[in-house]
Amino acid sequence: MGMGNGAIRIGRQGQDWTVKSALDGEINIGLMGLGTVGGGVAAALLDNAEAIRRKTGRAARLRRVLVRDAGRTRQPALPPGTLTVNPEDILSDPQVHVVVETIGGDAPAGEYLERALAAGKHVVTANKEVMSRRGPALMALAQERQVNLLFEASAGGGIPIVGCLMSQLLANDIHSIRSIINGTTNYILTRMARSQTAFGDALAEAQERGYAEADPTNDIEGIDAAYKLSVLGSLAFHRRIPHQAIFTEGISRLAPEDFRYAAELGYAIKSLAIAAAAPDGGIQARVHPALVPEDHLLAKVDGVYNAVEVTGNLCGQIILHGQGAGRDATTSAVMGDLLNILRTIDNADGPPPLPLPDGGSPDAAHQVHPIDQLSSAYYMRLTCADQAGVLAQIARILGDGNISIATVIQKDTDPGSGTAQLVITTYPAREMDVQTALQSVARLGVVASVNNLIRIEE
Amino acid sequence: MGMGNGAIRIGRQGQDWTVKSALDGEINIGLMGLGTVGGGVAAALLDNAEAIRRKTGRAARLRRVLVRDAGRTRQPALPPGTLTVNPEDILSDPQVHVVVETIGGDAPAGEYLERALAAGKHVVTANKEVMSRRGPALMALAQERQVNLLFEASAGGGIPIVGCLMSQLLANDIHSIRSIINGTTNYILTRMARSQTAFGDALAEAQERGYAEADPTNDIEGIDAAYKLSVLGSLAFHRRIPHQAIFTEGISRLAPEDFRYAAELGYAIKSLAIAAAAPDGGIQARVHPALVPEDHLLAKVDGVYNAVEVTGNLCGQIILHGQGAGRDATTSAVMGDLLNILRTIDNADGPPPLPLPDGGSPDAAHQVHPIDQLSSAYYMRLTCADQAGVLAQIARILGDGNISIATVIQKDTDPGSGTAQLVITTYPAREMDVQTALQSVARLGVVASVNNLIRIEE
Repeated sequence: MGMGNGAIRIGRQGQDWTVKSALDGEINIGLMGLGTVGGGVAAALLDNAEAIRRKTGRAARLRRVLVRDAGRTRQPALPPGTLTVNPEDILSDPQVHVVVETIGGDAPAGEYLERALAAGKHVVTANKEVMSRRGPALMALAQERQVNLLFEASAGGGIPIVGCLMSQLLANDIHSIRSIINGTTNYILTRMARSQTAFGDALAEAQERGYAEADPTNDIEGIDAAYKLSVLGSLAFHRRIPHQAIFTEGISRLAPEDFRYAAELGYAIKSLAIAAAAPDGGIQARVHPALVPEDHLLAKVDGVYNAVEVTGNLCGQIILHGQGAGRDATTSAVMGDLLNILRTIDNADGPPPLPLPDGGSPDAAHQVHPIDQLSSAYYMRLTCADQAGVLAQIARILGDGNISIATVIQKDTDPGSGTAQLVITTYPAREMDVQTALQSVARLGVVASVNNLIRIEE
Repeated sequence: MGMGNGAIRIGRQGQDWTVKSALDGEINIGLMGLGTVGGGVAAALLDNAEAIRRKTGRAARLRRVLVRDAGRTRQPALPPGTLTVNPEDILSDPQVHVVVETIGGDAPAGEYLERALAAGKHVVTANKEVMSRRGPALMALAQERQVNLLFEASAGGGIPIVGCLMSQLLANDIHSIRSIINGTTNYILTRMARSQTAFGDALAEAQERGYAEADPTNDIEGIDAAYKLSVLGSLAFHRRIPHQAIFTEGISRLAPEDFRYAAELGYAIKSLAIAAAAPDGGIQARVHPALVPEDHLLAKVDGVYNAVEVTGNLCGQIILHGQGAGRDATTSAVMGDLLNILRTIDNADGPPPLPLPDGGSPDAAHQVHPIDQLSSAYYMRLTCADQAGVLAQIARILGDGNISIATVIQKDTDPGSGTAQLVITTYPAREMDVQTALQSVARLGVVASVNNLIRIEE
């Protein structure tokens, strides 16, 4: 630990980086943002000073906290002079050794972090968007300046998945990540499955309980999950997976009957964020509802809980399950990062490089395959005329598209309209073939509507 | 990373420690043991040289491998001159930078590791017994010599729980660890639950499949789990939890009817290793069969899989699930440790201290409470006379002992012997009171036998 070592360390090889001041005394923290997570971090720093010193050998002091409005009353109460509305009070203060960022969003947080690293400050961030958009560039900068950049809270909340991918599981060739990393959608889907609630009602209930925002788009359309998957996938596969390259499909098309039919077939419906190595060396990265076998642990992740399954060549299948959001769980991740910086601050040489594939560039997005190329089993639900020969017509179109039917169930005949629900599951087929076939199916006179197409994850 | 930094670093503060040689070139690995895990590590080193260099920035070379019999044919095939039967070829070779130990058992591995650390070598070990018996002393030595001592594989196999407790979850006050960390017993219990197999038959089947050893004592009596719990508990609670202080109870008393009655009550039966903070600041540490609510994720851990649940003040409840043993999973953990040493070898200052409670000594075992003091709910199964008034007699004894009955089921009346099975569950009570009351119950004329007493974990 080098406690009591007062030597000032100078950058190696003549690099132009800030000379670290002697760190014998307290480590000064500059906290940016004092919302839900920032408030939790501030409270943890103020309330646990002695435990932090005992666990790390260093004392941490909350030196400045950046807020938008310094006049508001705050919980926890901060020492006088701590609050500031001027980011320079943190970024330009050489006595701030570590910047903890909990603002969220790319602007202005991304630039703040870049400046903090450039100034030789260690950085802890909970920011999925910044790490998704700028992760490789920030990591390169941190490495150059020989400081730490830690971001456990940017994906999976309190679940220690980021560190596991960077550290404990590093020896593995990762085959796939399959995850439930958005608590809002998982809460809604759990409600829909348990009580046959309609999507709109379940969403309204999630909003009432504070699990969904007034504008829930980012959550229910899979955008939040795509940012997180971008972070996790980049770590797992050692290449940049831009969030824009990730296929996203929301959950709003799911109906109570989909849950009922899925259960009949032995499946739960979950919104999964999946990144998987493709045989050609590329990556499949996607966020969408999926049928999951009901005896798989991912099917049993309820409510706002999150879970991440990692499959590697050595570790096999590992599942981490816990709270993916919330003040305390996210504070656990941020403070874990901060404590790890404190206990190694004397010897920090920056994070290890994010290894890139040979010849790969950090911006090489082309290696993420479009969803068209996916091979998957599918569940499809159609409303059809309740008459003989309908299935034969549909089966012929699917067969012509090289799609093999696994099961067929016909349900909920409506004598009034003369229609019935037809639920078909397929063996693995190409997404492009399935989409094309379904367009032909939709044009059949006996098909009133194609209600849903859901991928099946075995 | 300081790649290309050829500076020789000298110990600080005049400590007498080995000057590290310039580490610009390859990092030399001395592997001790070439059994199942050692063979996996050797293969991983030989087969993945390029991936290791890419992930860590350093090249690793398998310099020497200690075996008992150098004449045997080996898989993988090792470069000529690698095998040795003399530990000095590793311990006394200043060119060996990292020792990886996969021998197992305290002697001679414990002394080897002590000598390796004393010589300024980094150490990776998979040895639960050494880390349980000597962990704090070895960690202190590693810190003094400013080298790493990593031991992810010593508990939980491929599940990254050791690193999570040391790093990502470090900010938490841990309330409890509840774990399934012995795959042999979990395989046997899964078989007994699924097929109503008798214990002896399930054990024989586990032995046939290679999941249980010829002498299965260490596994089925909870000794293996106690070593692992000692390691995990010491990390979680920042104090030494000697394995001898951990209460252990094996699984051989469980009968098929216990699984049947437990299922009827909504529980699975699992052998749990539990360490929990007691209200008085002490620790409860125990390994025993327990009834677990069937909808809890721990109840769904099947076969040889392991799982660890950690509950902390910030992270809430986290569950890690994966393969707790086996060549590949254990290799994942060992190689993860090794890669982390490789990527930080230029700046290693040794592991952070294992924080001890104020005034605590590393050998303070007295803080682990005896099982007598446990407060728990219980399941008890008795064979009683099938006649009126029996329950009243038993209930009076329990009531006198301050034990409240939660449920009673009477089953499997045997007209021949005039007996029936009586299954009683209680509300939380003191273990000592329950044990005392059960002795009185056993002396009742109407009670033929007390067949089992199993703690209930909600």
